[in-house]
Amino acid sequence: MAARRSAGTGEVLVVGGGIGGLTAALAMARAGLGVRVLERAGQFAELGAGLQMAPNASRVLDRLGILQRVTEAGVLPRRLVLRSALTGRELAALDVGGRFRRRYGAPYVVLHRSDLLAILVDACAAAGVSLHPGKDVLTVTDHGDRVCARCADGTAYRGIAAIAADGLHSRLREMFADDAPVCSGFVAYRGTIDISQENIGEVTRCAALDEVVAWIGPGLHFVQYALCSGTVCNRVAVFRSRQYAAGEQDWGTPGELDEMFSACCPQVRAAMTALWRDRRWPMYDREPMGRWARGRVALLGDAAHPMLQYLAQGACQAIEDAYVLAGKLACCAGRDGSHLVPRALAEYEQARAPQAMRVQRTARLWGDIWHIDGAGAVLRDELFAYHRPGSYRYTDWLYGPVTEREERA
Amino acid sequence: MAARRSAGTGEVLVVGGGIGGLTAALAMARAGLGVRVLERAGQFAELGAGLQMAPNASRVLDRLGILQRVTEAGVLPRRLVLRSALTGRELAALDVGGRFRRRYGAPYVVLHRSDLLAILVDACAAAGVSLHPGKDVLTVTDHGDRVCARCADGTAYRGIAAIAADGLHSRLREMFADDAPVCSGFVAYRGTIDISQENIGEVTRCAALDEVVAWIGPGLHFVQYALCSGTVCNRVAVFRSRQYAAGEQDWGTPGELDEMFSACCPQVRAAMTALWRDRRWPMYDREPMGRWARGRVALLGDAAHPMLQYLAQGACQAIEDAYVLAGKLACCAGRDGSHLVPRALAEYEQARAPQAMRVQRTARLWGDIWHIDGAGAVLRDELFAYHRPGSYRYTDWLYGPVTEREERA
Repeated sequence: MAARRSAGTGEVLVVGGGIGGLTAALAMARAGLGVRVLERAGQFAELGAGLQMAPNASRVLDRLGILQRVTEAGVLPRRLVLRSALTGRELAALDVGGRFRRRYGAPYVVLHRSDLLAILVDACAAAGVSLHPGKDVLTVTDHGDRVCARCADGTAYRGIAAIAADGLHSRLREMFADDAPVCSGFVAYRGTIDISQENIGEVTRCAALDEVVAWIGPGLHFVQYALCSGTVCNRVAVFRSRQYAAGEQDWGTPGELDEMFSACCPQVRAAMTALWRDRRWPMYDREPMGRWARGRVALLGDAAHPMLQYLAQGACQAIEDAYVLAGKLACCAGRDGSHLVPRALAEYEQARAPQAMRVQRTARLWGDIWHIDGAGAVLRDELFAYHRPGSYRYTDWLYGPVTEREERA
Repeated sequence: MAARRSAGTGEVLVVGGGIGGLTAALAMARAGLGVRVLERAGQFAELGAGLQMAPNASRVLDRLGILQRVTEAGVLPRRLVLRSALTGRELAALDVGGRFRRRYGAPYVVLHRSDLLAILVDACAAAGVSLHPGKDVLTVTDHGDRVCARCADGTAYRGIAAIAADGLHSRLREMFADDAPVCSGFVAYRGTIDISQENIGEVTRCAALDEVVAWIGPGLHFVQYALCSGTVCNRVAVFRSRQYAAGEQDWGTPGELDEMFSACCPQVRAAMTALWRDRRWPMYDREPMGRWARGRVALLGDAAHPMLQYLAQGACQAIEDAYVLAGKLACCAGRDGSHLVPRALAEYEQARAPQAMRVQRTARLWGDIWHIDGAGAVLRDELFAYHRPGSYRYTDWLYGPVTEREERA
């Protein structure tokens, strides 16, 4: 079985066509590399609903030339707000309007995951990326001077590098570690509803259309924001499952959802009805790991650093990965560049791993802070009261340009 | 068996001759009342070692004319400091020097409990208080126009009022509630060492002689300060007993002490050696209760509001009680005052109970904050970093004059 290869100077194989894989493909194509994306599913599609795009990611989309389409498909919120899920009281807010945009050089955008994926697919196709749905990559072999990816359908592809963007349950991560996803014991329910004249009162009771609001409380939280140019309301309810803690197989059930949120303030309780109840998302991450690149193979996005969603940075960190990766691999384009690949991937790892690991750890901490009870909740609320909506004290490390972060490190 | 009574206009019986009881006796004597103190023990004595006297209490001692003797026997610290027991890092501090003294109209003093008790005994005797050690009061009966206290030795005393200052395990509290002390599962080890040329280096490694330092960490803390005009070092180590949590009978053992503190920084570990190991103090409080006075009987100090020691306010609140009580009862002195007693005691309760209950609750919270772990400790340290040593944000409610507190309430 002969492996196919590109006619020209060797191409980069991207395993996984989600947001991270496609952004990497687009960025590498723009950097002059030949790119082939192998996606297991029969089509390019995203599960879930809303996605928050912080400036560390939207800045990349801007450089890739797709930010305008993204902002048109999404919403530019004015504020991120934390409220008590129990009392409804506002605990802290972050202004993400003009001043924030100027500081970080890009906007905070929220949009539908499907919309972002469609934009990326279009842009990849236009940039000459080869897109192959239905390609379930079973193994990648590093032959020293090239890689070979073998798929479940018997096909194989050669390339100068393989980028594993195959998500939380990454098969290719096994080349780097024998770890497993870590279950948080939390589960998410999601839902979207169209915003109409009839329900806009009920929708905006929970959050203004130009706000991303998280209602936080002991062992639970609820997030709402508008999507799709303000025509759709996105909702996520998350809670710590007592059934999981008790070792039950069937945990995080809709009954448990209702019971957990029954203690919340009326605005949050009323919003529960709009959640999808036939599907739920148990929440996993992995222990941070600093080794992502070896030879001609590297991990990207959730395959490298799956994280809990509390900082809304899963996709954002994957997009940062993509941009840095493309920058490092740019020198490998062209006839004589292939031998530079291992070094470029090592540099990509060095540039990205410390920050991504920090985000993984901080996401866990931030979740603990959201869900804390007792004296911890008293401390949190008191600390949050010190925070000014215009302060960048807690966001510079995350949203600031890479160069600034590196200077401070 | 005829009950003895004072020859003149009827006296107030104080059941319990600890710090609260004696301060009440002294204050009432100064207010013109006849006072008799009935103390179960064979002599007036205090267990334990160091005692912190915050301005809400030292202000009272000043008005009673004994502050100078108290400060001569004690130490006036310059700062209260919170440090991490794990890393040794300073987390927050409160300046309690001149500016603090001016704000609250009295100093922060630390002294030996025995020294304060001796000063109170002397002052009571000089003020004409009848002091009766060896009087174990079994019952107090309220006859409407008088009270009668009956002792284990068969004696009985009549008076116009009975003040129960018989501590955490108050027998007379049973007249008001059928509650029981609440065990915190924490235990304290104490110790004092004389400060000499030989050991002063080791002593001041933990805390300067003009500082009260609490080293706080997950499930434990350690406090050090100097006493006795700076010649004695007072130490207290407190921890949450895992043996208690596991339901064991013998809990909070010296072995557990050593194990718990083995995770602390070297300065704290080194200080463990100076603790007494043959005696330990399991820590109790009770649920806050607002009803302390009925007819001619009222509770005072730990009998009314036993509290965990994290705010160092047990004795201070008792001293505040004493002063308010004497002020309310002053009108009952003299031939025709006896009928005013029930109303005066009710006013005492109204004036003191809300604040004392708040202190009880806040002491629990403050202990939880000291001993918190994980995300809570991160929040605490971050919040503490906002605190300025000259800020009165968290002390006005506690140390401020009663009138100011009442104005704010």
